[in-house]
Amino acid sequence: MEPVLLYDTTLRDGTQGENITVRAEEKIKLALRLDDLGLHYIEGGWPGSNPKDMQFFDLARRVSFETSRLVAFGSTRRPGIAPGEDANLKALLDSETPSVAIFGKTWDLHVEQVMGNNQQENLAMIRDSIQYLKDNGREVIYDAEHFFDGYKTNADYAIETLRAALEGGADFLVLCDTNGGSLPAEIESITGEVRTSIEGGDAKKTTANPIRWGIHTHNDCGLAVANSLAAVNAGACMVHGTINGYGERCGNADLTSLIPLLVLKMNCPSVSSQNLAKLKTLSRYVSETANQVPFNNRPFVGKSAFAHKGGIHVSAIMKVPRAYEHMDPALVGNQRRVLVSDLSGKSNVEFKARELGIELGGNGYNSRKIVSEIKQLEQQGYQFDIADGSFRILMEKFTDQFDPLFALESFRVTIEKDKDQPCTSHATVKISVGNQQEITAAEGYGPVSALDNALRKALDKFFPDLDTMQLVDFKVRVIDGVRGTAAKVRVFIESRDQDQLWSTIGVSEDIIEASWQALADSFQYKLAHEKRVRTRHTPSQAELPLFGN
Amino acid sequence: MEPVLLYDTTLRDGTQGENITVRAEEKIKLALRLDDLGLHYIEGGWPGSNPKDMQFFDLARRVSFETSRLVAFGSTRRPGIAPGEDANLKALLDSETPSVAIFGKTWDLHVEQVMGNNQQENLAMIRDSIQYLKDNGREVIYDAEHFFDGYKTNADYAIETLRAALEGGADFLVLCDTNGGSLPAEIESITGEVRTSIEGGDAKKTTANPIRWGIHTHNDCGLAVANSLAAVNAGACMVHGTINGYGERCGNADLTSLIPLLVLKMNCPSVSSQNLAKLKTLSRYVSETANQVPFNNRPFVGKSAFAHKGGIHVSAIMKVPRAYEHMDPALVGNQRRVLVSDLSGKSNVEFKARELGIELGGNGYNSRKIVSEIKQLEQQGYQFDIADGSFRILMEKFTDQFDPLFALESFRVTIEKDKDQPCTSHATVKISVGNQQEITAAEGYGPVSALDNALRKALDKFFPDLDTMQLVDFKVRVIDGVRGTAAKVRVFIESRDQDQLWSTIGVSEDIIEASWQALADSFQYKLAHEKRVRTRHTPSQAELPLFGN
Repeated sequence: MEPVLLYDTTLRDGTQGENITVRAEEKIKLALRLDDLGLHYIEGGWPGSNPKDMQFFDLARRVSFETSRLVAFGSTRRPGIAPGEDANLKALLDSETPSVAIFGKTWDLHVEQVMGNNQQENLAMIRDSIQYLKDNGREVIYDAEHFFDGYKTNADYAIETLRAALEGGADFLVLCDTNGGSLPAEIESITGEVRTSIEGGDAKKTTANPIRWGIHTHNDCGLAVANSLAAVNAGACMVHGTINGYGERCGNADLTSLIPLLVLKMNCPSVSSQNLAKLKTLSRYVSETANQVPFNNRPFVGKSAFAHKGGIHVSAIMKVPRAYEHMDPALVGNQRRVLVSDLSGKSNVEFKARELGIELGGNGYNSRKIVSEIKQLEQQGYQFDIADGSFRILMEKFTDQFDPLFALESFRVTIEKDKDQPCTSHATVKISVGNQQEITAAEGYGPVSALDNALRKALDKFFPDLDTMQLVDFKVRVIDGVRGTAAKVRVFIESRDQDQLWSTIGVSEDIIEASWQALADSFQYKLAHEKRVRTRHTPSQAELPLFGN
Repeated sequence: MEPVLLYDTTLRDGTQGENITVRAEEKIKLALRLDDLGLHYIEGGWPGSNPKDMQFFDLARRVSFETSRLVAFGSTRRPGIAPGEDANLKALLDSETPSVAIFGKTWDLHVEQVMGNNQQENLAMIRDSIQYLKDNGREVIYDAEHFFDGYKTNADYAIETLRAALEGGADFLVLCDTNGGSLPAEIESITGEVRTSIEGGDAKKTTANPIRWGIHTHNDCGLAVANSLAAVNAGACMVHGTINGYGERCGNADLTSLIPLLVLKMNCPSVSSQNLAKLKTLSRYVSETANQVPFNNRPFVGKSAFAHKGGIHVSAIMKVPRAYEHMDPALVGNQRRVLVSDLSGKSNVEFKARELGIELGGNGYNSRKIVSEIKQLEQQGYQFDIADGSFRILMEKFTDQFDPLFALESFRVTIEKDKDQPCTSHATVKISVGNQQEITAAEGYGPVSALDNALRKALDKFFPDLDTMQLVDFKVRVIDGVRGTAAKVRVFIESRDQDQLWSTIGVSEDIIEASWQALADSFQYKLAHEKRVRTRHTPSQAELPLFGN
């Protein structure tokens, strides 16, 4: 199969997602990472729409890309003026990108009722805006906005808009499912029909200068990836999408799914296998930059994507991986994880120990004894399948390999409230590192925050790198619901730094005790990881982030 | 189109998701909500595999369902024994559900290399396990595990396993994409081929007693929903899935997408439009119970699913909603953009007020003003649709009908920890009731427990009935995950006494402040309820728990 061209719009459509804002400098860094993955096109932004995107294209002029062509995005000219007078089109040319993408209206409803335009003028806008950009030496990608909705309402007019784009000289015709409401079967049949109706009449186009089709989908029905594949099956040679599927409403087609699907399942060599193996890291990089909590269940690249529970599964996976895995996780840079859960057996623990580089047997703890200890802890409410960080520390403790980088001497936390005034919390923490002690105090937005702050402050003296670490999720669950506020609670903390994500757990009748356990484990994990990284030149496989980070 | 049967496995496959644990009592409540949505089948669990699922089926015997059939899940018998000797099958019968689902092996790789079994014995296991369950009067749903992988490797044997299931008397043949690695086009073509090869040879089956096909997909390629639709296109009349797509690895097919797709896009009346409108609320209920952060971008039911950026869009949407929306969000109980809650609409508030017996207009607060206040509180992270108790108090406060039965003067909580000793917490609380004051102190299993105990002790002097009330669930969620332990948290408390369950909420950067809000609301709600009951002979409908708890 011919390589399908990958067109990334993370920097434009992706940043339309709620809560996502990325600075122009960050966009440049992201673009370089996308280039490094070997994507064919990178849509950088809409220079006519906001100053940030203009700034991006200014910065981008000084950067050179290995594989990717940079694309500036805009719309067809406004009605009633010449293309050369249109500020939008001028901004596109000013961006000095080799390719430009412009969208035009396909759907008569939009042309007439939303724009208050007429159908003929809309066709002229499409035709001469493209012509103008072509005359100025640009490759032009034409996005037929609302194509499928338009076609379903008025197929003839939808086809006419595409013909106008071809007359203008468009290099790609991209069919957009802008509202995300179409089904794969519709996408496939409509794409096929449209190809027949356009290519059928123009034999020359199909041979000497074949028309190239693209697909741009949104995920409002949870079908953006499937819809893209349906269009590829019907002959599209360019797919638009975003990393992690970020985008407005329910997002765009997720390239972190589309790329492995094309390469691994459809034998379409859109990126090299070497680049494919960077996919998980790229996904994490993008979620970090966009400041989004990584979605653990994300296909292919999520932390849970290759996580297995259950002893039977695990022993089978050791023997025959494909029995329970649809592909080798390493192909996309991900890793198999075995969740230690109430189903845990000896083979799980042995697998885990190998993965963590922990030698069993120390302190008299073999896998059998560890399994029985874990089962007892799980009876008490611990859950190690969701707490990789605490699990590592536990295994190290059992086998006498735990080297605590600090120890708690004591803490005191006080919370006060008067009438309707908000609470205030302060904490005093005393720790020891080696034979040095440190006592300090801090305030916080509550007792756990005060403890966190005081502990950081005390540790900062010894470990200045700690500010890269932050807590991303904090969950509390009552385990035994019948005892009211005296019930046992489980606290789960997820932390991250620039490289990895890790989870820790604490269980107690006392929410502060449980929080402390999880908090202390999280810091111990981070500090031990830093130490391992520092003391070895080349991290071995066992040193890489453990649970598929 | 004939209604496709909806088969929910949230309670079994859904709870295999990482981080998801649900107690047996919570599973019963969930099952009642699924029944209320009108789903055809609810798979409750695997009674042979763990005590929690056995307990669920024990509890379920005392519950009656309106629409749904309850299903117990298990496997075919073990090799080499008779079905009647198999503990697994016995546990299925002991569950006393009208339907049972059992899975069997399709893939020769699993039969031989993983199980160490032989192909003939596997066929016998399928055939006679089903026969045994049929002889015991059960409807039998046969899950052909790894069907598509098995078929791709050894189509003949895969077909033989289905024939064995039919010989045993299976009522449904469900084709499972267990590893989630198949593409929609494969699912559609294989389902078609299999139907031809099984139905083609048995004309009687296809007419008098047609074979009924089901589909069970996993989301490892981001295609679970599309794959389910592909099977429906090829003739499947039952789809398996979970609410919110919860499940192992990348999850299962998401019923919150599948249901609207079937009903709205494929004209398949699987649930009534009245029930479809409950979908968003159900999705939220399930994520709350599973203690999962709701996924805002989830198609159809997510908070952002119909969120529009940009003024042009918004004014266009007012004129021509379908210009930018593929469907009316109200059809699935969702709302456009800022209208995030079920309570943010004048008529909803009026409806709710009537239900609660609260008169609007007091203190200048009519429904319009209340809606705008609620919207602001929801911006801050409150969520009143899941906190009936706090909602009642809020409405009473707005309209000057709130009669606080106690007031806080002040509290102090201290938590201390030395080295490895457990934490100790004590609280001093000073309250006033009328013009009397009371100050007292108590210990507890943590700060919230100490506060709870001290408050109870102080109130006990005035309200001796309080000991019937207890807290049954306590949840904490970080709302804004990027600010570490300084993030805003939402505390949700569920309380009960002998008659009722009620929920309260607090939001703050300080977990103790948020807990106090929820705790104080819970006591106020209880005391006000007692007072109303004392002053009236018969509780009216308005006195019953509000939100279907």
